[in-house]
Amino acid sequence: MDFAPSPRAADLIERVRAFIETEIDPVEEDYHRDLAARRVDGDPWQPLPVIEELRAKARARGLWNLFLPAGHEGPYAERFGTVGGAGLSNTDYAPVAELTGRSHLAPAVFNCDAPDSGNMEVLLKYGSEEQKEQWLEPLLDARVRSAFCMTEPGVASSDATNMELRAEVRGEEVVVNGRKWWSTGVGHPDCELLIVMGLTDPEADRHHRHTMVIVPRSAPGVRVERLLDTMGFKDEPGGHGEVTFTDVRVPLSNVIAGPGRAFEIAQGRLGPGRVHHCMRLIGLAEKALELACRRGLSRTAFGKPIANLGGNRERIADARIAIDSTRLLVLNAAWKLDQGGPLNALSEVSQIKVAAPNMAQQVIDFAIQLHGGGGMSNDFPLAGAWTSARALRLADGPDEVHRGVIARLELMKHGARR
Amino acid sequence: MDFAPSPRAADLIERVRAFIETEIDPVEEDYHRDLAARRVDGDPWQPLPVIEELRAKARARGLWNLFLPAGHEGPYAERFGTVGGAGLSNTDYAPVAELTGRSHLAPAVFNCDAPDSGNMEVLLKYGSEEQKEQWLEPLLDARVRSAFCMTEPGVASSDATNMELRAEVRGEEVVVNGRKWWSTGVGHPDCELLIVMGLTDPEADRHHRHTMVIVPRSAPGVRVERLLDTMGFKDEPGGHGEVTFTDVRVPLSNVIAGPGRAFEIAQGRLGPGRVHHCMRLIGLAEKALELACRRGLSRTAFGKPIANLGGNRERIADARIAIDSTRLLVLNAAWKLDQGGPLNALSEVSQIKVAAPNMAQQVIDFAIQLHGGGGMSNDFPLAGAWTSARALRLADGPDEVHRGVIARLELMKHGARR
Amino acid sequence: MDFAPSPRAADLIERVRAFIETEIDPVEEDYHRDLAARRVDGDPWQPLPVIEELRAKARARGLWNLFLPAGHEGPYAERFGTVGGAGLSNTDYAPVAELTGRSHLAPAVFNCDAPDSGNMEVLLKYGSEEQKEQWLEPLLDARVRSAFCMTEPGVASSDATNMELRAEVRGEEVVVNGRKWWSTGVGHPDCELLIVMGLTDPEADRHHRHTMVIVPRSAPGVRVERLLDTMGFKDEPGGHGEVTFTDVRVPLSNVIAGPGRAFEIAQGRLGPGRVHHCMRLIGLAEKALELACRRGLSRTAFGKPIANLGGNRERIADARIAIDSTRLLVLNAAWKLDQGGPLNALSEVSQIKVAAPNMAQQVIDFAIQLHGGGGMSNDFPLAGAWTSARALRLADGPDEVHRGVIARLELMKHGARR
Amino acid sequence: MDFAPSPRAADLIERVRAFIETEIDPVEEDYHRDLAARRVDGDPWQPLPVIEELRAKARARGLWNLFLPAGHEGPYAERFGTVGGAGLSNTDYAPVAELTGRSHLAPAVFNCDAPDSGNMEVLLKYGSEEQKEQWLEPLLDARVRSAFCMTEPGVASSDATNMELRAEVRGEEVVVNGRKWWSTGVGHPDCELLIVMGLTDPEADRHHRHTMVIVPRSAPGVRVERLLDTMGFKDEPGGHGEVTFTDVRVPLSNVIAGPGRAFEIAQGRLGPGRVHHCMRLIGLAEKALELACRRGLSRTAFGKPIANLGGNRERIADARIAIDSTRLLVLNAAWKLDQGGPLNALSEVSQIKVAAPNMAQQVIDFAIQLHGGGGMSNDFPLAGAWTSARALRLADGPDEVHRGVIARLELMKHGARR
Repeated sequence: MDFAPSPRAADLIERVRAFIETEIDPVEEDYHRDLAARRVDGDPWQPLPVIEELRAKARARGLWNLFLPAGHEGPYAERFGTVGGAGLSNTDYAPVAELTGRSHLAPAVFNCDAPDSGNMEVLLKYGSEEQKEQWLEPLLDARVRSAFCMTEPGVASSDATNMELRAEVRGEEVVVNGRKWWSTGVGHPDCELLIVMGLTDPEADRHHRHTMVIVPRSAPGVRVERLLDTMGFKDEPGGHGEVTFTDVRVPLSNVIAGPGRAFEIAQGRLGPGRVHHCMRLIGLAEKALELACRRGLSRTAFGKPIANLGGNRERIADARIAIDSTRLLVLNAAWKLDQGGPLNALSEVSQIKVAAPNMAQQVIDFAIQLHGGGGMSNDFPLAGAWTSARALRLADGPDEVHRGVIARLELMKHGARR
Repeated sequence: MDFAPSPRAADLIERVRAFIETEIDPVEEDYHRDLAARRVDGDPWQPLPVIEELRAKARARGLWNLFLPAGHEGPYAERFGTVGGAGLSNTDYAPVAELTGRSHLAPAVFNCDAPDSGNMEVLLKYGSEEQKEQWLEPLLDARVRSAFCMTEPGVASSDATNMELRAEVRGEEVVVNGRKWWSTGVGHPDCELLIVMGLTDPEADRHHRHTMVIVPRSAPGVRVERLLDTMGFKDEPGGHGEVTFTDVRVPLSNVIAGPGRAFEIAQGRLGPGRVHHCMRLIGLAEKALELACRRGLSRTAFGKPIANLGGNRERIADARIAIDSTRLLVLNAAWKLDQGGPLNALSEVSQIKVAAPNMAQQVIDFAIQLHGGGGMSNDFPLAGAWTSARALRLADGPDEVHRGVIARLELMKHGARR
Repeated sequence: MDFAPSPRAADLIERVRAFIETEIDPVEEDYHRDLAARRVDGDPWQPLPVIEELRAKARARGLWNLFLPAGHEGPYAERFGTVGGAGLSNTDYAPVAELTGRSHLAPAVFNCDAPDSGNMEVLLKYGSEEQKEQWLEPLLDARVRSAFCMTEPGVASSDATNMELRAEVRGEEVVVNGRKWWSTGVGHPDCELLIVMGLTDPEADRHHRHTMVIVPRSAPGVRVERLLDTMGFKDEPGGHGEVTFTDVRVPLSNVIAGPGRAFEIAQGRLGPGRVHHCMRLIGLAEKALELACRRGLSRTAFGKPIANLGGNRERIADARIAIDSTRLLVLNAAWKLDQGGPLNALSEVSQIKVAAPNMAQQVIDFAIQLHGGGGMSNDFPLAGAWTSARALRLADGPDEVHRGVIARLELMKHGARR
Repeated sequence: MDFAPSPRAADLIERVRAFIETEIDPVEEDYHRDLAARRVDGDPWQPLPVIEELRAKARARGLWNLFLPAGHEGPYAERFGTVGGAGLSNTDYAPVAELTGRSHLAPAVFNCDAPDSGNMEVLLKYGSEEQKEQWLEPLLDARVRSAFCMTEPGVASSDATNMELRAEVRGEEVVVNGRKWWSTGVGHPDCELLIVMGLTDPEADRHHRHTMVIVPRSAPGVRVERLLDTMGFKDEPGGHGEVTFTDVRVPLSNVIAGPGRAFEIAQGRLGPGRVHHCMRLIGLAEKALELACRRGLSRTAFGKPIANLGGNRERIADARIAIDSTRLLVLNAAWKLDQGGPLNALSEVSQIKVAAPNMAQQVIDFAIQLHGGGGMSNDFPLAGAWTSARALRLADGPDEVHRGVIARLELMKHGARR
């Protein structure tokens, strides 16, 4: 159980921290103000230029595609990866992810944003050479963006075997028909590819019925029906779309890894992806606690700094305990993934997927309360942060499903069959 | 402790229930869809015509100004009040408020919406004849709308003695200078008056420094700087504004009840108003639990209705317990107000102000979880409902301040001086 | 929903309050000290004489068998009942039960203690004339005590259909074989009868297999194997026994209401019994909150009364909210029972059975914390109170079973079959 | 952040685990049964011989005084310490402490029990050569036992500066007068020394007024007034005493480290001691979760193993998350202590002191619930385990005081002075 980052990672962490402090933090408030202005009067779905400027700076300093995992030190890592041209272990990347989680902009600036980073990992691990050339390279190069289409509006998607969208193999083509929603990133003008999970063989066993297939955003029959609100937020310019697929035809070579392998890929995609999400939530919660402490010391009511009123100090202490213990839990899951891969960390990954969003939701809710009405407005990043944390109690498997996994593994230690 | 509504109220409750079911429920989904469309392409700050149509119907059936309190059975009750021309006791009005809380539109349809209802109560109770004629009549008649300006961005407004906006008496005028925010309703095109709380005499004792004054929306120097987001929602067409007052001059006759009496008025306004808010939250939570049960029975995962998975049934039970016990607590506070007025129910009113929003937030959060991603979208009223409940943990005094009141009264039973 | 006690009950409540304050409170501390001394050096299973003295006083003032329910105004009520010779409705008895819950001794003093009161209700409602004469009269007269034998050590007794002890009808006899535990009161030297639930007809439908039978404590084959600890407490002199029954033979006339009717009786016994338990818990929680407030004001740390440190005032407020809302919930259940009997109040009774013990456990835990180490000792009634509250999360059906009942009834409103 | 035990510790951990499984576990149930029998009929304050037998075995295998800290590798470690004659770092000892926490007997068997282990650490670190020879050697050799007297009945001892017992220096003597309680271990017949904290110089600054002094149990004027109950438990044969000191005179050489240094010593004693307590609680919670899983799989209700009913699986999952995250938090505190001593880990030690007992209380409460009535009896170790966890929310500083420390350190990061 050694959670300390390697010397190379420690150096990188410091540089990421410095970049965020000197380059991103000073412009983040402006970014939100400009985006709000566009919502009133303009097009918030056109990305603000500051993002591209920051990306160029970050890339120039080698702070790019930081999520690239260890073990993929091939040509992509050299051409598009971080300084030194090598991926990072989960343990090494975790503190980086925490730092990027403190800032709304940072993940995109370092080209480490969901769903692109997860999609890139899928292509890197399961993609054919042709797929890598055509789709992975432009993503690593940030010339394009992508979406991931799994959840469906018509079924309880928490049980992924419920997925009904059809991805039928007909000769050398795959024909896609159905409807997805919560397709994050599909509203971005640069979004050029969708990785879509569809039902191919209803007769196969439960975990080999579905296929992952790459669908170009521009393919005939692909239609973004609307961009969804999340607690009132649209998360422009990427957004979350409801997308219909009507007789969409793509070549069979767009299938990732082979028909019927969607579950295997999803599992491989989600393990490290959940660590990334959870570490970003740690960063978000730290940021919220900092804001709470500062507000609590700077505002006065009934003759005292509000931090000193009622149970506020106790809540600050509880937030510190919750953040620190959850961070350690996530680091432990990262370390277990590094030691033996996803099968070695099934319970651990589900544990953090329950613990981190609930913890962050709690801490941010407290920070909102200390900020009064302002906490719910867009003057502070707290309302957005809360919504992110809340959404992650549903995305990538709701709390209840993960609790089910943990309990099954626990009871199996004592003889339960499942 | 008799919480049963009077026969007249029981009749009214049934008629309100029928009206909501037959007139409002069938159009509510359309309303939200049309409003969403206006947000993308149009002006959401212009009220949709359906509201006026529903108001006319409701008024024609005598379901109008239902909030009018018992004891004000004068000419206004006769001309503008509910069937029978008499106000309702808090106990009688509470179940009506619960029903209206189930629907986003109902409060406005029955002309019982915050902040108008609270402002009308203030004018009815503390206004001069002239003020009543000029401002109360049009409000009762729904020709105009109003806003209430208390919270300020620059101070911890949970301590109302912190208020810094100046309302200086200069001869026969009051001169208003300062900044307010969370002025609910100020974005509505019909908003014509603002009731503003300002500092008049900094030398007076803590609770006699401030004054309530009526400021016309059109007075020179009044400027709505922006309309705030609450968790991403703008709550059009009323909204919540940040408003500046620059050398705004109104006649001294616009002062309500007299200079220095703002605290007294606020206290009188907030008692029944909190009962209304809390009963609406009960209705909101009931609605959320209904939606959760229906969703839980209609969606299937892992071979079972999701209501039967994991701890969902236990959470349904806990929601039922929480709703029922909180409803009884609110009814009890209403009954105590009826028995002996606000001073008789100080602890009770603070108790419900803590209990109801927290309960509703919890129940709605569970309902969201059972709805999956859809629960956070605008396809269901849950995201908006959650935001309302969350906001009420801050509005009209944050949880912490109310807990302080309750504890003080409790400890005073045992000899504490405060 | 009129929870106010009748004038007769209001008078009784005042007299009970006065009796507790003037007669019981002054001797209660001595009682516990004397009992503790007997534990070290003597026999704590011999009741201390003070109980009999207090009972005589209470009876002389007509404060006797207060639990006798309305509708049983026959000769027993006249001969052994409260002043006026009539039983009380649940709504009327509830505040009496709350008062008796404040004191460890009061329930026994007024002859209203579990399990005797529940057993007397069973005999009153379901007993034959012969059974009433032989067993009910001495109980009403407090000449004897009783036990109730339902829970078994070998099965999950939360599912009462699991009960395995056999009560076989053989001609004119019932033969009892098996093992029970948590038989409350069986350690008392005056305990002369056991009401035992046993399996009679394994072929009958699930709810008609079991029988209630009266077994004399002295019948051959009845053996108290041991007296159980509850969190270290033995609850002398009644205690909780593990009891074996070996070929115990009683006449068929000892069967209550008829073979196979145990479930019906248990249901009828438990409805009002749960209201009594829950109201006593309200009284216990009130007492704990009072002790907490007094301790909080009288002890000083870090220069302040400890009530003013950290989150203590907020916790006092939360306790007040929890007690008041739970009391209203129990009163509501009592009122529903009065309106339409147990079938009218299935959800309500399960709701209070979940809400009251959990609430009391929470409030008492806080009171313990404010008392420091002393709170866990026997110097204060808090450790015993906590244990009572905790035990009631299991006794008479664990929380989880009651939550299941509530959820089933809730989902059935929306079309679920169960 | 490397929490892995050293190879030597890893070996020791395996041997401790094996010893507990093969030597202690098989006799533990008998131990409790025999002790219960003595309570009914005999003297539970005379230790059962099995303890001495187990101690001899443990010592023969070098599993002795395992708590001895790194850095004290002098003659004592060689003569009385674990295999290899060297103390363990906190990180190395933590997993050992977790294992011993699973068993009620293990801490005493390995001579690692509170308060002896803490007292030995104090003597090792602060004791004079003479004190070590006279008091430390017999403790390391397990010839005698000790008590620690800090808490007082008359003041809020959570603020240690409140301590009123006088330890006056008069020439070459210290005169002790006052009253202590919760003096753990003082009931044991082998208890020969008391380390007592008393007020020496009321005029000195707050943290230099008190002195630690060694008082022989047999000194004239020392009187154990009574042995306290904790939730009904007496914890024989060590117990928790209320002790009076009346003109007790000990030589000045019995003062530890010098007059006025009690706070410094307490601080040094409590850091590692809290890690030990917390790791034992982790072991206790693991044991409780195991028992819950086994019971949940082996008992059936409503046709299913009770583990599969309602929210039980979710609670098992939550218990796993809570245990694992709290263990990591404790390991982190141990590691920080090893890196830089108590001042390096002030917040971390307070964090675990809040987190571990609350977590354990929660997990054990759930395990009790799954065991039904049996869970509260002495048939399972759960009632005792719960009481230990609950007591540790008060002992060594209540939750609230530790939350205060954490919050102060947190706010000081943002400029607060305290």
